Amino acid sequence: MYRTHTCGELRLTDAGKTVTLAGWVQRVRDLGPFLFVDLRDRYGITQIVVEWLDYHVKGEGGLGSFVVDPAKRAEKVETLAKLGREFVVQVSGPVRQRDNENPNLPTGEIEVLVTELKVLNAAKTPPFTIEEETDGGDELRMKYRYLDLRRANIRRNFELRHRMAMEVRNYLSAHHFLEVETPVLIKSTPEGARDFVVPSRMNSGEFYALPQSPQTFKQLLMVAGFDRYFQIVKCFRDEDLRQDRQPEFTQIDCEMAFVEQEDILNTFEGMAKHLFKSIHEVEFSEAFPRMSFDEAMKGYGCDKPDLRFGMKFQSLTPDPSPGERGEDLVRGVGFKVFDEAELVVGINAEGCAGWSRKQTDALIEFVKRPQIGATGIVFLKWTEEGLKSTVDKFYTPEHLQKWAERFCMKQGDLLCIMAGKADKTRKQLNELRLHMGDLLGLRDPKVFKPLWVIDFPLLEQDEETGRWHAMHHPFTAPKPEDAQKLFDQQDLGSVRANAYDLVINGTEIGGGSIRIHDRTMQEAMFRVLGFTDDDARYKFGFLMDAFEYGAPPHGGAAFGFDRWVSLFGHRTDIREFIAFPKNNSGRDVMIDAPSRIDQIQLDELGITVKG
Amino acid sequence: MYRTHTCGELRLTDAGKTVTLAGWVQRVRDLGPFLFVDLRDRYGITQIVVEWLDYHVKGEGGLGSFVVDPAKRAEKVETLAKLGREFVVQVSGPVRQRDNENPNLPTGEIEVLVTELKVLNAAKTPPFTIEEETDGGDELRMKYRYLDLRRANIRRNFELRHRMAMEVRNYLSAHHFLEVETPVLIKSTPEGARDFVVPSRMNSGEFYALPQSPQTFKQLLMVAGFDRYFQIVKCFRDEDLRQDRQPEFTQIDCEMAFVEQEDILNTFEGMAKHLFKSIHEVEFSEAFPRMSFDEAMKGYGCDKPDLRFGMKFQSLTPDPSPGERGEDLVRGVGFKVFDEAELVVGINAEGCAGWSRKQTDALIEFVKRPQIGATGIVFLKWTEEGLKSTVDKFYTPEHLQKWAERFCMKQGDLLCIMAGKADKTRKQLNELRLHMGDLLGLRDPKVFKPLWVIDFPLLEQDEETGRWHAMHHPFTAPKPEDAQKLFDQQDLGSVRANAYDLVINGTEIGGGSIRIHDRTMQEAMFRVLGFTDDDARYKFGFLMDAFEYGAPPHGGAAFGFDRWVSLFGHRTDIREFIAFPKNNSGRDVMIDAPSRIDQIQLDELGITVKG
Repeated sequence: MYRTHTCGELRLTDAGKTVTLAGWVQRVRDLGPFLFVDLRDRYGITQIVVEWLDYHVKGEGGLGSFVVDPAKRAEKVETLAKLGREFVVQVSGPVRQRDNENPNLPTGEIEVLVTELKVLNAAKTPPFTIEEETDGGDELRMKYRYLDLRRANIRRNFELRHRMAMEVRNYLSAHHFLEVETPVLIKSTPEGARDFVVPSRMNSGEFYALPQSPQTFKQLLMVAGFDRYFQIVKCFRDEDLRQDRQPEFTQIDCEMAFVEQEDILNTFEGMAKHLFKSIHEVEFSEAFPRMSFDEAMKGYGCDKPDLRFGMKFQSLTPDPSPGERGEDLVRGVGFKVFDEAELVVGINAEGCAGWSRKQTDALIEFVKRPQIGATGIVFLKWTEEGLKSTVDKFYTPEHLQKWAERFCMKQGDLLCIMAGKADKTRKQLNELRLHMGDLLGLRDPKVFKPLWVIDFPLLEQDEETGRWHAMHHPFTAPKPEDAQKLFDQQDLGSVRANAYDLVINGTEIGGGSIRIHDRTMQEAMFRVLGFTDDDARYKFGFLMDAFEYGAPPHGGAAFGFDRWVSLFGHRTDIREFIAFPKNNSGRDVMIDAPSRIDQIQLDELGITVKG
Repeated sequence: MYRTHTCGELRLTDAGKTVTLAGWVQRVRDLGPFLFVDLRDRYGITQIVVEWLDYHVKGEGGLGSFVVDPAKRAEKVETLAKLGREFVVQVSGPVRQRDNENPNLPTGEIEVLVTELKVLNAAKTPPFTIEEETDGGDELRMKYRYLDLRRANIRRNFELRHRMAMEVRNYLSAHHFLEVETPVLIKSTPEGARDFVVPSRMNSGEFYALPQSPQTFKQLLMVAGFDRYFQIVKCFRDEDLRQDRQPEFTQIDCEMAFVEQEDILNTFEGMAKHLFKSIHEVEFSEAFPRMSFDEAMKGYGCDKPDLRFGMKFQSLTPDPSPGERGEDLVRGVGFKVFDEAELVVGINAEGCAGWSRKQTDALIEFVKRPQIGATGIVFLKWTEEGLKSTVDKFYTPEHLQKWAERFCMKQGDLLCIMAGKADKTRKQLNELRLHMGDLLGLRDPKVFKPLWVIDFPLLEQDEETGRWHAMHHPFTAPKPEDAQKLFDQQDLGSVRANAYDLVINGTEIGGGSIRIHDRTMQEAMFRVLGFTDDDARYKFGFLMDAFEYGAPPHGGAAFGFDRWVSLFGHRTDIREFIAFPKNNSGRDVMIDAPSRIDQIQLDELGITVKG
């Protein structure tokens, strides 16, 4: 046994006990006759002290050790002189009250007086400091990830991840979900994202694929009568990477039979509330708000609005959607930009009327960046001197008054107005809104605002090719009232689905849908998506066959676990919550993967590498 | 909402309530004026009855539905005539007490009188019966796995698997193990088994590998100070398959820092006891027995003895191992087979003295099969007429008496004795012992006999090439007292490891070891295994580097989850506990994977398929 206690465990009530601890040297302070060491392990830090520096007996062999014996005077021990940061040591001795307590440490009232010390392993000087605020750059920390993971803030991320995984499973298990492992070696059926593939040695020339999600398998489990399924499962996508994308990522994957959308939303809203409560002690007594996809796009310019702050869009022109009405407050006075715009839309930045020219110019620069690509912003501010806009030469005070009314503007507010093609302008205004939220400190990571976005379109059309794509995936069912349009291939853009996303603080945490459970409907869907019947049968014949043997109505959801954990950890970079992440080139720089493999492996697999 | 209750939920106390159920048609009995249907879901079976067959109103559209209205007389409904096995239906009506109760069903006291019925989905006649005892062959059931999984006994396997996974996690979490996900896309370092590899698109010509186990990552987590790690994780081996091997399999993977072997055995013995208790209500108050590898090989001819029955080996010659003694009871009387044998060893089959010549001949045939390859068995039986052997012409009654004493034989017993090279003969006798256990019904799958096998050799030598292989894996530490032999490359066969296996009923459920945590030791180990220093650095440099930055002493274990679940399910075929298993050619016959992939995918990956 290497220790009797951990480094986070001892309290004043333990004073007098003789204990053994083991851990890493966080810090050494040599104060002449005394030597203090902060000894660290996963559970905490305990101060140890060597008092009788001149009284000791050298231990036997190994990396260095000594026994304190006040009766014998000897040389100052080499072991102590060498002791450096991150050395692994084992110490024994009595626990005693500290002279100067450290109120910041749970163990801060005590220290361990060393009577024996043994170096279990030496350590080279780490390439960066093992502190919450480290001096190590990204690449260096990834190469020495095992050292990076020693930092307390990073370690806490994994403690959080562990607790969330346990709570998710406990909740789902209590709600009769069965955890079932679906296969990792499956069939390649790339839709949208690319599959990672695995050459088969036993079936030469053939490949497995790694799942982008266990979608078809969980549906088959519903056909199999498993009723409720879940899995916290690795999924794989061979996509170009960004900060919030990894080639392998983890999903909370769920499916339920004999359910309608309402049952599913209630179940997973319950799960989310359980997580908020158990992890953050945040209680949501009300139902999460719901917003249709259309409402989200019109009100926030995106399908995942951040509701931690307002600035909901208001338009000054009638909405160009079919059937929409609204008074035009901007056209016909000769301001060409607004006259020619399909939509003029803005946000009210409350309390920002006092912003300087420099500040508003910076906003214009922000939206003009190529990533956003807008042409400008029209401002209207209400100061003590009244309403004042950057287009005063076109609009009368009465005009401006009407604008102010539409936005429920108060003195001290600042309107930011953009104009152009409706969809594009809304997307640009969404970027501006989020930027304003950041600037105004309205996006506090410790505040949580969940939202269901519902009534997604089933399909979206590629502007260039005219091809229809499934907005969620090809297994999502149309709303029953829209189903005929799928068979008729008529008015496809208006087909809605019982599909939903859970959005928290502007991040899409997950989503799902009611699925198709009927062969003819699934066939119609594949036809709309441009599959030949042969292709559909080759790729998904097993699923359509299954629908003919008594498939129940079913639906489900999947949640991005990495994202959810990082959201709960108040951070945006999911790599801080993945033990061994890949970099943006898909490389693990620590183990240096991917790498070349032996010719003998290639030969056995019957493949060659080109070029 | 499709249902108010499940099909396993209603009891007599619910009589009078109006309920809605949904499920599959298990059975239809048309008794003239009444029609009985057994409606099934995951939770059970409920009898539903349509009483007023002639009184109904046809419902609207869909696959068929009707509403019962005793006031209106109409045609016998088509819906009912068509209703077949595995149709998915929804029914509503009052719960009432049954006339003839079915004591075999938890819902057997009640039935639901149908007032409304709706067919939710039709079903073709299933290709095999959905019953515990099915008429479907293996291939057919695998092709329609989603139907096979509907069988109650198969479904129960997954309920068991779910419960075991939850209990394992709860136990480990309560013992401060952190669940950490290790990567699936790693580096190819094939040792022993072949890796599955994944071509990288972004790093052309390079490959990831799928992990055979997270071994190096869990060790890095110990270097990272995570202290205790676990994961229930998929692992992959591209091996030729057998009944208990799958290309992807699931492991309970664990690692602990600052531990000695004793700490690890206690922790996982605790986990095993927790599982026995929580799943099977079996309490093990005593510690699991422990047996050294040598003792297991000598006493049972294998490193995973089945202790549900005795028949421990006894030898009639001195053991040929160095330093072993024992009286020779067989040589020197002219029986050439025994004279020339390195070892004469046997088992006592208690109570089998009465076995017929036919039965003992069958045993000889059994061991003569090429898989075993023995030459024969010498029998000694003790009947009412005294001791009688098949080698009476060589041995005096005094000889035989001494044999009987060595085996503590009683009247009624039968000795089975084999002879030859020591190791080979023990292996053959092991097969005979297990076969006798089967014949005598001594291997009851409902009885559990756990055992730790300890003190494994660190290395084993390939007879043909003379090369040394790691018996567990190259990261296993030698016992400290044997460590110098590794550096000296002397007497390698005698190096023992603090390595251990958990064996239950003759099945190796898992195992582990204390690991190397020192760079020079790891380098010495790789040299012994025939790695060049360059090769070792290329493949495992990251781990050896990590050992230089303060690696704590550590060790761990991994358990085969598929095997453990099947053992707890009293079955031997792990495929019954894997939702979508592969067949012996590594194929998933349901989805038809692996399969050819598009040329465009190959081109993007920069690989070509040969031939």
